Amino acid sequence: MGRVGLPLALSFSSKGVKVFGVEKNKSTLKLLKEKRPPFYEAGLQEALEKSQGSIFFESYDSFSFEQCHIIIIAVGTPLNENFMPNMSSIEDVIKSICRTARNDSIVILRSTLVPGTTEKIIQPLIGRVGKSLHVAVCPERIVEGNAMKEIATLPEIVGADDQDTGNIVRELFLLLGESKKITITNTKTAEAAKIFNNVYRYVTFALANEFALVSEKIGIDAREAIELANRGYPRGPIPMPGPAAGPCLRKDGFFLPNMSNDSLTRLAWFLNESITVHIIETIEKAYDNICGKKIGVLGKTYKADVDDTRDSLAIKLIEELRIKKGAEVISYDPYTTNFSTLQEVLNSEILILAVNHSVFNKINEDMLKNVKFIYDVWGQLSHLDLSSHEIKYVALGKIETWSHKKSLMASF
Amino acid sequence: MGRVGLPLALSFSSKGVKVFGVEKNKSTLKLLKEKRPPFYEAGLQEALEKSQGSIFFESYDSFSFEQCHIIIIAVGTPLNENFMPNMSSIEDVIKSICRTARNDSIVILRSTLVPGTTEKIIQPLIGRVGKSLHVAVCPERIVEGNAMKEIATLPEIVGADDQDTGNIVRELFLLLGESKKITITNTKTAEAAKIFNNVYRYVTFALANEFALVSEKIGIDAREAIELANRGYPRGPIPMPGPAAGPCLRKDGFFLPNMSNDSLTRLAWFLNESITVHIIETIEKAYDNICGKKIGVLGKTYKADVDDTRDSLAIKLIEELRIKKGAEVISYDPYTTNFSTLQEVLNSEILILAVNHSVFNKINEDMLKNVKFIYDVWGQLSHLDLSSHEIKYVALGKIETWSHKKSLMASF
Repeated sequence: MGRVGLPLALSFSSKGVKVFGVEKNKSTLKLLKEKRPPFYEAGLQEALEKSQGSIFFESYDSFSFEQCHIIIIAVGTPLNENFMPNMSSIEDVIKSICRTARNDSIVILRSTLVPGTTEKIIQPLIGRVGKSLHVAVCPERIVEGNAMKEIATLPEIVGADDQDTGNIVRELFLLLGESKKITITNTKTAEAAKIFNNVYRYVTFALANEFALVSEKIGIDAREAIELANRGYPRGPIPMPGPAAGPCLRKDGFFLPNMSNDSLTRLAWFLNESITVHIIETIEKAYDNICGKKIGVLGKTYKADVDDTRDSLAIKLIEELRIKKGAEVISYDPYTTNFSTLQEVLNSEILILAVNHSVFNKINEDMLKNVKFIYDVWGQLSHLDLSSHEIKYVALGKIETWSHKKSLMASF
Repeated sequence: MGRVGLPLALSFSSKGVKVFGVEKNKSTLKLLKEKRPPFYEAGLQEALEKSQGSIFFESYDSFSFEQCHIIIIAVGTPLNENFMPNMSSIEDVIKSICRTARNDSIVILRSTLVPGTTEKIIQPLIGRVGKSLHVAVCPERIVEGNAMKEIATLPEIVGADDQDTGNIVRELFLLLGESKKITITNTKTAEAAKIFNNVYRYVTFALANEFALVSEKIGIDAREAIELANRGYPRGPIPMPGPAAGPCLRKDGFFLPNMSNDSLTRLAWFLNESITVHIIETIEKAYDNICGKKIGVLGKTYKADVDDTRDSLAIKLIEELRIKKGAEVISYDPYTTNFSTLQEVLNSEILILAVNHSVFNKINEDMLKNVKFIYDVWGQLSHLDLSSHEIKYVALGKIETWSHKKSLMASF
């Protein structure tokens, strides 16, 4: 019942499917039984409230899968300390399911898998314990924060090694939205296709960051140049620069057998991960030594308008400032618990806007009275007129000093 | 009057602008005066025929720019032997223009330039010879082969350092199509934006090639996986794999100040350029030694359905086979002059389909009687049933041996 499983379970239950939402974590389970969402996702609260009587939240430790025709696995597959996909939770779940599942039930893997996992690991594992479950993969491809809406419309790639299983999984997912495009292929191709989607996005984000670094060298505003390059142009769009990570994109490249020296995927990882260092080095050009300096950081999640801090480069930035530079960091994020208030953070001499949450659009010049230096990671405050406030303003991809001259730009 | 200048000149003349098409090359000039296109571009022939009396083709050596209000420069800016953008032709043209142009005429740079060139090189150069020309940049962004159509619709980025010049250039380009989006910015940003467009495409092509190499390791069909990943998915599309080069994309990354070790642009170049080596190494897995072997290559241009062999990886592949491997290569391309016929090439034991020209769709099993091995760079022949013909078939991103089993794939 995580960020992948819960929205999917609620979507199926809203279509009249009898759903058991199985969860290991006791406090999550308690929240769910009280119809309280364990995390933020648009529309999730309402869906939970409406689900009364059509979904049954069950403890993983005591649940028997015997009563299920179809079992969807949506556990996480993070990287381990060797940057290897950690398959142990998936394997544990498969073993556990095999203990109580009836033969001929269908197991659908919704998690991100190394291409070949179903064929080389999951199916042999099921065979070894003497079960004859059917296995399919149907990888999750939603954007976090918009899951409830996207589940009804996104196409699905079903990987199945027999046509009957494929057809049943197709019928099942068609319940979520009649117009959903559903394609059946082999398991390995389905596993790879999903990773290609994520790696593609991640590499284009890294390239946007490369353009930001190049723009700083050239002396232009990367966001302006990218916006112009994209305006009405059919071959794009180039994404905007900014720290790119998060629990999906940051790890998925490591699921491919290509983390070699000549891999764009690998270099994209180094480039995206280096953005926090670049931010700090830029600040250090204004302040020779930031040890002991008070720095305020706005935003802690891995992207805008979500409450998820997993694999967040804002957190990495804060740690880097504290652990490697000895700075005194206070932070505020409207979606997380905080030890400082927004105004306390805004009172810092050095302010970093690390995550472009919509609510930060409300920040104005008068709220920044004590600020001397702003590093605006997403260019979100570029509309402010800071010239009269003696604030040095720098954005990722745009290095300008005290003068805050607008470039000659007009749209017709 | 090259592939950028001629379509633009004809487009302006068709809108009632008095145009002088200035060309240095005598044989090109002769063809143009006879209304014969010097290269293939869809609709170019018709436009040339219609242009009777509204465009005047002139020799660069004797033309006086005094009679022009606006001078558009569309000379090539290739790389020199140090992989540096060769600016000498642009500088020569500027000097030549300055000799006869009236003061206050507007020079528009349509060529790809290193960001900063107009500011740091062109404007000082004009100043040194005592002229006061206005300078703007308006970079070409058409797709070769579809120039005539795209000129009327593509948005334009105008870089100008004074608003009046920018406005005049905007008015001029609006003549080409009322709905064209035209944005004015500074010269440096306009120069960079165009390169960002091209580098973005080039890096995504390289990533597609990386996915092809990964797919071969995993044992899936890269084109199938990418097609599935893209089908109806809003975050993409991922391009299809294949050699990526050509006179624009191959060089434009070198116009940015970021060809460093940690640059995606640089790595994309190495990855795209390495595809010819990968193709040859794959063939060498089937034939230990290809020295002296007869190899047929279909296609020589840099991409499908154009007649342009500049910066073509098909040519590089042929040279690599001949010069580094000692193979005996014969080749055929419907858009170029050939020393062999199509059927002669199709009679080779080893056949490489190097460029996916539409006409090659007509190739069928019966035309491949002597072929033992096909390397299909673009997967264009994957629909053929070669199993009964004992032909080993390999595509970039799809290594399968004699059995030509279709994967379980259906679309609903």
